[in-house]
Amino acid sequence: MKQLQEKIRTDGKVLSDSVLKVDSFLNHQIDPVLMQAIGEEVASKFADEGITKILTLESSGIAPAVMTGLVLGVPVVFARKRKSLTLISDLYTASVHSFTKNETNDISVSKDYIKSDDVVLILDDFLANGQAVLGLIDIIEQADAALSGVAIVIEKGFQNGGKMIRDRGVRVESLAIISSLANGKVEFIGEVSAK
Amino acid sequence: MKQLQEKIRTDGKVLSDSVLKVDSFLNHQIDPVLMQAIGEEVASKFADEGITKILTLESSGIAPAVMTGLVLGVPVVFARKRKSLTLISDLYTASVHSFTKNETNDISVSKDYIKSDDVVLILDDFLANGQAVLGLIDIIEQADAALSGVAIVIEKGFQNGGKMIRDRGVRVESLAIISSLANGKVEFIGEVSAK
Repeated sequence: MKQLQEKIRTDGKVLSDSVLKVDSFLNHQIDPVLMQAIGEEVASKFADEGITKILTLESSGIAPAVMTGLVLGVPVVFARKRKSLTLISDLYTASVHSFTKNETNDISVSKDYIKSDDVVLILDDFLANGQAVLGLIDIIEQADAALSGVAIVIEKGFQNGGKMIRDRGVRVESLAIISSLANGKVEFIGEVSAK
Repeated sequence: MKQLQEKIRTDGKVLSDSVLKVDSFLNHQIDPVLMQAIGEEVASKFADEGITKILTLESSGIAPAVMTGLVLGVPVVFARKRKSLTLISDLYTASVHSFTKNETNDISVSKDYIKSDDVVLILDDFLANGQAVLGLIDIIEQADAALSGVAIVIEKGFQNGGKMIRDRGVRVESLAIISSLANGKVEFIGEVSAK
């Protein structure tokens, strides 16, 4: 997605060979016009999939997910992050390890909002090691719902999450895939659609 | 806002005389079409105020804030909640006490995203004791920015936050104001605009 790549190039901050900060339009400050364009792009890719629900993770996934939900005409559910959860019977929970922060959080979704007849699109802001997406897939499996695919705003193509999830046979659509952050420079590979 | 009141009546769950759960369309599952209507309503109330930025709080404020930002054509910034923050020089921070959870969290905003020439609209999902809004006002004051007003999706009119903030001379616009949750029944008072 050209508009997104340009935004990343002009406003993203490369902090290291593996860390890209996009706090100015996605992760802290949000550009609503860009989010709308992202929503339209994701919706166009999954328009014919019979999606009934979008599942994302608080907080940075919410804005692009809601814009996508508006175009597709379906509700959005955001999984909640918690340090630890005592077992609560009305929640689906999964553990998500963050390699960046070196901590494990539980994520949870109420059983009321993902049902076995749902066709779910997962949407998240970043895909790096894939742990968050795996946690969301786990929740969809617990609910016995169908997974339509995964939409990602920014994929770090040089980390293994995208390959790992595509290797499971899951359709992953990333709007921007970064091939390298070396030398403070963002390089992209073409938009990849792999089933 | 009639559409919102009807949604609260049909889909809200009254858990006690003071607790209303709206997890099915605002706080966990999100209704994007309703969020868009909320965004249009808030934007129409503050259209002539020269707003340059919307400030909200993760996670439930993000969806209505982004829809409002889209209509007003301005960026949204969401304050982050953290259990405790060591002093970081590039952040504005404020403490917010939750009476419901009986805990105090720090909220923070990067100094990059609220500047002294900003005219800021605060938007949040709920107004009850007003502690979150007071924390956000604190951050705007630290940034020496101008506060245009406060937009709230659901105000609990039987708690003191709304009065406290209006008494400071701040314009508060709540799209639905609940006068009572007694006997498991939601009662509203008319939309109130008080400067």
